[in-house]
Amino acid sequence: MNLALLFDSDFVDADRAVLRGRRLTHLTSVIKVATGDRVPVGRVDGPMGTGEVVRLTDSEAELRVTLDQPPPPPLPLTLVLAMPRPKMFRRILQTCAALGVKDLWLINSYKVEKSFWQTPWLSEDHLRENLVLGLEQAKDTRMPAVHIRKLFKPFVEDELPALLAGKQALVAHPGTSVPCPAHLEEPAVLCVGPEGGFTDYEVGKLQEAGCQGVHLGPRILRVETAVPVLISRLFDSCL
Amino acid sequence: MNLALLFDSDFVDADRAVLRGRRLTHLTSVIKVATGDRVPVGRVDGPMGTGEVVRLTDSEAELRVTLDQPPPPPLPLTLVLAMPRPKMFRRILQTCAALGVKDLWLINSYKVEKSFWQTPWLSEDHLRENLVLGLEQAKDTRMPAVHIRKLFKPFVEDELPALLAGKQALVAHPGTSVPCPAHLEEPAVLCVGPEGGFTDYEVGKLQEAGCQGVHLGPRILRVETAVPVLISRLFDSCL
Repeated sequence: MNLALLFDSDFVDADRAVLRGRRLTHLTSVIKVATGDRVPVGRVDGPMGTGEVVRLTDSEAELRVTLDQPPPPPLPLTLVLAMPRPKMFRRILQTCAALGVKDLWLINSYKVEKSFWQTPWLSEDHLRENLVLGLEQAKDTRMPAVHIRKLFKPFVEDELPALLAGKQALVAHPGTSVPCPAHLEEPAVLCVGPEGGFTDYEVGKLQEAGCQGVHLGPRILRVETAVPVLISRLFDSCL
Repeated sequence: MNLALLFDSDFVDADRAVLRGRRLTHLTSVIKVATGDRVPVGRVDGPMGTGEVVRLTDSEAELRVTLDQPPPPPLPLTLVLAMPRPKMFRRILQTCAALGVKDLWLINSYKVEKSFWQTPWLSEDHLRENLVLGLEQAKDTRMPAVHIRKLFKPFVEDELPALLAGKQALVAHPGTSVPCPAHLEEPAVLCVGPEGGFTDYEVGKLQEAGCQGVHLGPRILRVETAVPVLISRLFDSCL
């Protein structure tokens, strides 16, 4: 936690917030704050700044907050991701949030096992919790939007074309002949398949919708490695 | 496992290898091979190709192997990494191997807890096991070298200068004013600190040795995210 993210419900006055639970434990056990210390804070979807600890008990820390800096710029990216294996899903959510992804679409694919959709990590509370952890890691405040689409074909045929309008649209597909571009200066949509990749049928449908297949070289990377590698390559000037 | 990595001890003849254990289980349970099927294989530190399943029992798969392709090019990178928290260490090892890192130095730093060095994952067998998993993921055969240096100062003063000779030398240091360069065409040495970063003293010592401090932007990334982001940025043409 490199920044404590503050929610409306944390505020007890215009410039006062009270922290409990995980954030309090982090302040007292990891950062080991004392009254009078200042810590980095940010208001969700708002500015960032510092919070001065004005009262500290076993169960609460009250901060006087000054919010005077903008959060880092969002990535101009729409990330369309085949639903990852639950074991990896939380980490991928946190990574996406930390990298500045603000628009994440979780979609179905032939190699997404049906059971993946049953994970409790897809609940609204758990999604939010993991996105908050990513934002707090990276020092950002803008909450990403997560869209869940459990049917591949209706998403690709009915929704994807509108998402692509006016953007560079790519599907990461090992084995294709076009290398992934670098240093984009325009917004992009990037589709990333499951472990084992999209099927040929799925790549065909994504291409019909307007996506270009691109590869990252001869190495086959896990999704949790491919996502930061792709984002760094596409948006090295935005990170 | 996108490739079965074969060791000298697996070969029963010049072109015959016998797999047991983890690799056999993967072939039979995940890929579900039958006699006559071909699977991607590679010989450790040697060429890659295919293995035809010529005999399959409950305990063994015998492959007739044809090795006629070179492995992907190694990254021209020496990665110097503060010893990560054991929970993350295996994953980081696998990621480094998958990305083509061939020279990895694990070093001490003020914020590396002493207990990190006690992890069983630092044993030669476990290091090799996790590097193999990374190579098999990425389809590579060249085994990375891992060097363990539990004392910061002797490493930085006595060994690092020779490692840097003729190379671009960088230390990732959030908050410095120079952005990390991109698209290197020359070999590089990259130093990455622990969670919380190198101390100012340590950054000073690394700079004295010849490293330039560089940042990745305003976001603070976890080591396991920063490493693929940095590698993708430095070597987008080598991946």
